[in-house]
Amino acid sequence: METENILIKNTIILNPKENKIVEGFKGDILIENNEISQIAKKDEESISENGIDKIIDGKSKILMPGLINTHTHISMNLFRGLADDMALDEWLNDNIWPVESGLCVEYCHAGASLALIEMIKSGTTTFNDMYFYMENVAEATTESGIRGCLSYGMIDFGDKEKREKEFKENINLIKKYNNSANGRIKTRFGPHSTFTTSKELLERVRKEANKYNVGIHIHMNETKKEIDDVVEATGKRPFEYLEELDFLKNDVLAAHGVWLSKKEIEIIKQKNVNISHNPCSNMKLSSGVASIQDLLSKNICVGLGTDSVASNNNLDLFEEMKFASLLQKVDTMNPTDLTSDETIKMATINGAKALNLEKEIGSIEVGKKADMILIDKNSVNLNPMSKIVSSNLVYAANGSNVNTTICDGKILMENKNLTNLDEKSIIEKANKAIKELKN
Amino acid sequence: METENILIKNTIILNPKENKIVEGFKGDILIENNEISQIAKKDEESISENGIDKIIDGKSKILMPGLINTHTHISMNLFRGLADDMALDEWLNDNIWPVESGLCVEYCHAGASLALIEMIKSGTTTFNDMYFYMENVAEATTESGIRGCLSYGMIDFGDKEKREKEFKENINLIKKYNNSANGRIKTRFGPHSTFTTSKELLERVRKEANKYNVGIHIHMNETKKEIDDVVEATGKRPFEYLEELDFLKNDVLAAHGVWLSKKEIEIIKQKNVNISHNPCSNMKLSSGVASIQDLLSKNICVGLGTDSVASNNNLDLFEEMKFASLLQKVDTMNPTDLTSDETIKMATINGAKALNLEKEIGSIEVGKKADMILIDKNSVNLNPMSKIVSSNLVYAANGSNVNTTICDGKILMENKNLTNLDEKSIIEKANKAIKELKN
Ligand SMILES: [Zn+2]
Ligand SMILES: [Zn+2]
Repeated sequence: METENILIKNTIILNPKENKIVEGFKGDILIENNEISQIAKKDEESISENGIDKIIDGKSKILMPGLINTHTHISMNLFRGLADDMALDEWLNDNIWPVESGLCVEYCHAGASLALIEMIKSGTTTFNDMYFYMENVAEATTESGIRGCLSYGMIDFGDKEKREKEFKENINLIKKYNNSANGRIKTRFGPHSTFTTSKELLERVRKEANKYNVGIHIHMNETKKEIDDVVEATGKRPFEYLEELDFLKNDVLAAHGVWLSKKEIEIIKQKNVNISHNPCSNMKLSSGVASIQDLLSKNICVGLGTDSVASNNNLDLFEEMKFASLLQKVDTMNPTDLTSDETIKMATINGAKALNLEKEIGSIEVGKKADMILIDKNSVNLNPMSKIVSSNLVYAANGSNVNTTICDGKILMENKNLTNLDEKSIIEKANKAIKELKN
Repeated sequence: METENILIKNTIILNPKENKIVEGFKGDILIENNEISQIAKKDEESISENGIDKIIDGKSKILMPGLINTHTHISMNLFRGLADDMALDEWLNDNIWPVESGLCVEYCHAGASLALIEMIKSGTTTFNDMYFYMENVAEATTESGIRGCLSYGMIDFGDKEKREKEFKENINLIKKYNNSANGRIKTRFGPHSTFTTSKELLERVRKEANKYNVGIHIHMNETKKEIDDVVEATGKRPFEYLEELDFLKNDVLAAHGVWLSKKEIEIIKQKNVNISHNPCSNMKLSSGVASIQDLLSKNICVGLGTDSVASNNNLDLFEEMKFASLLQKVDTMNPTDLTSDETIKMATINGAKALNLEKEIGSIEVGKKADMILIDKNSVNLNPMSKIVSSNLVYAANGSNVNTTICDGKILMENKNLTNLDEKSIIEKANKAIKELKN
């Protein structure tokens, strides 16, 4: 029998829509179909158990919105531990690209499925992805039960024929999958970056994005070298260049934003561009430190992302939250920067806004999609549970503290057991795939 | 029945004593009493199962030395999440110290026990601690089964009477507990820092340490302000000051070492002083970034530490390894710095050296104490298992991937179940303690 409603009783609810998230509040939550239909705070009348298909006792749990990963390449989960501690050129040219060139539909599916399990287990219910073989990522996402914003990574280096091929791929993805899987799958255009695509590609992306009414996912200002290259090629810094092309709007999600000039920050602010912050990847590849507190203080929307496991090397957004906050504090030498409340917002409601999905997800509200996770309150690393719940979740927790993951009203993990994916066989497939790719 | 020997069969062994730790090797390990008595590599004759009390199937596991945490204040586990995101003064004066002043034997025992469980569960088998009520920490450590180097945190601010009291406390601890619990407990002197103790205290610590043949645990060069204060008070930077007092020897473990002049690094090198690196704490409190790669390149011994959960906020050395490596890479802008191999050494054999315990612990060798952990190889975040095992453990793992913890030949956790401590009741006691302390 399909579960049509779920009642979670007597849980602590941590909600980033409140002005302050500290403390949370106690209450019951009713899920009907795929939406949150009722929330009863502790002092209000509790929700009736009549006609409920599934009751979850939330007494020893903390409930919060499912986390939102705003920048991933999930098929690259195959490349975990493939090559590390190397200069970017050696890493890409000698290690990642040779293996990547051997990828196929089957391998990508295995890598994506592995990533989807990792995300469900660590509390992520939405991810924003860019890569190749995206139809397979769409299929794997459909099977998994979580939400994905999918874009094809378009690269033309000025080659017209390649450009046509890229548009065909990305448009096919959009036509076939946008709003599929009960609306869990959204699609976007994925121009890879300003230094791997031509002016023609970028201009056409803007037109097609308007036409298909989908967003854009692009890498921006990740490394110092990339800025120098763009300045040399166009005479402008990357965001200035895109502004000139009339490319920038609120539907753009720019990953990284590590090296930004004052003028570029002003452009981002004016055009309401969204930033995905990827601290682990930026640290591991020695890209640099993004000035997140500065962006947030200007009311620029910043979500959190892991990037791929090739440069992270996991998809644990709890760990990423701690990295984000601590990196900012040591970079600015101000311990009051990026508080745990602000950091949780980055990983939830800001992520939703960054993907233009804030009407559907990112917080626990009646009428929003039922995307939520339950954290084990009794985990030794989360105790004692002093008054500041958000602090324990950002600074002390990791993904393994997630007990239950619900997305679109479906329980995908309960008491740490996956309900719909076969972890063992997917791990085997992924190991087989990388072994074959390396030969 | 007491287990007298344990055979771990057919496991991957990751050993920092090898020149390279990459790949590890497959084999069997025999533990007799509290020592490693035999290691058989896969291609050698396997170890007989005759007369074995306990056999562990290591097929789906990775075996490595138990991790060594070189700087903790474990009773402070009570203060997790008590106050965060604050300037140092506000944090200490208005939040930590008022609560700390209410501490008592019972509360400290609860906090220490909570920390000991957290360490066992995340794979730490030795810690180096400094605080008050250390006899209770010693009792809790004895119960727990892991190893502790314990020192009393001495502070006199020039007050002679206080000084006498501090020496009495620390010497009592040494007399009562040094080498107790089958040698698991070592003791040290714990002069808090150069800015909270007098010249007289420091000079006497050196004399008494020589007399009792124990080491010294001290905070050094953590913040810029502290350096300025010491320079103002003594005319010298902290390590120069201690050199002048003839304080420095290889038995000194200096925690932090964030702000070091070239001259101080030279002194550390010449005197063979050991450094404990605490990246999370240094980041969270905006203390600064220690130049670890520079110290390592000069063959200075650097171990890894978490500091207390008040500034971390957990005791997970797997997470700390990732922070250490990634922080170094982004600070120097060199992705080849602090490789995963170097980082695992910091958390194992370097930690042992830093505590002058390298003859007993820190690696898997015949004749060393049986301190080791088994990692779940099939965890989704550790797959695929490409050739580089150390990479997955440093960059992708967290403490929850530890399946089994063995210290001094005793199994303290097996299949994630603690064998000798009551987690539920200790968590309850810790929550009760902090609740009462806050009232
Ligand atoms: Zn990326
Ligand atoms: Zn400390």
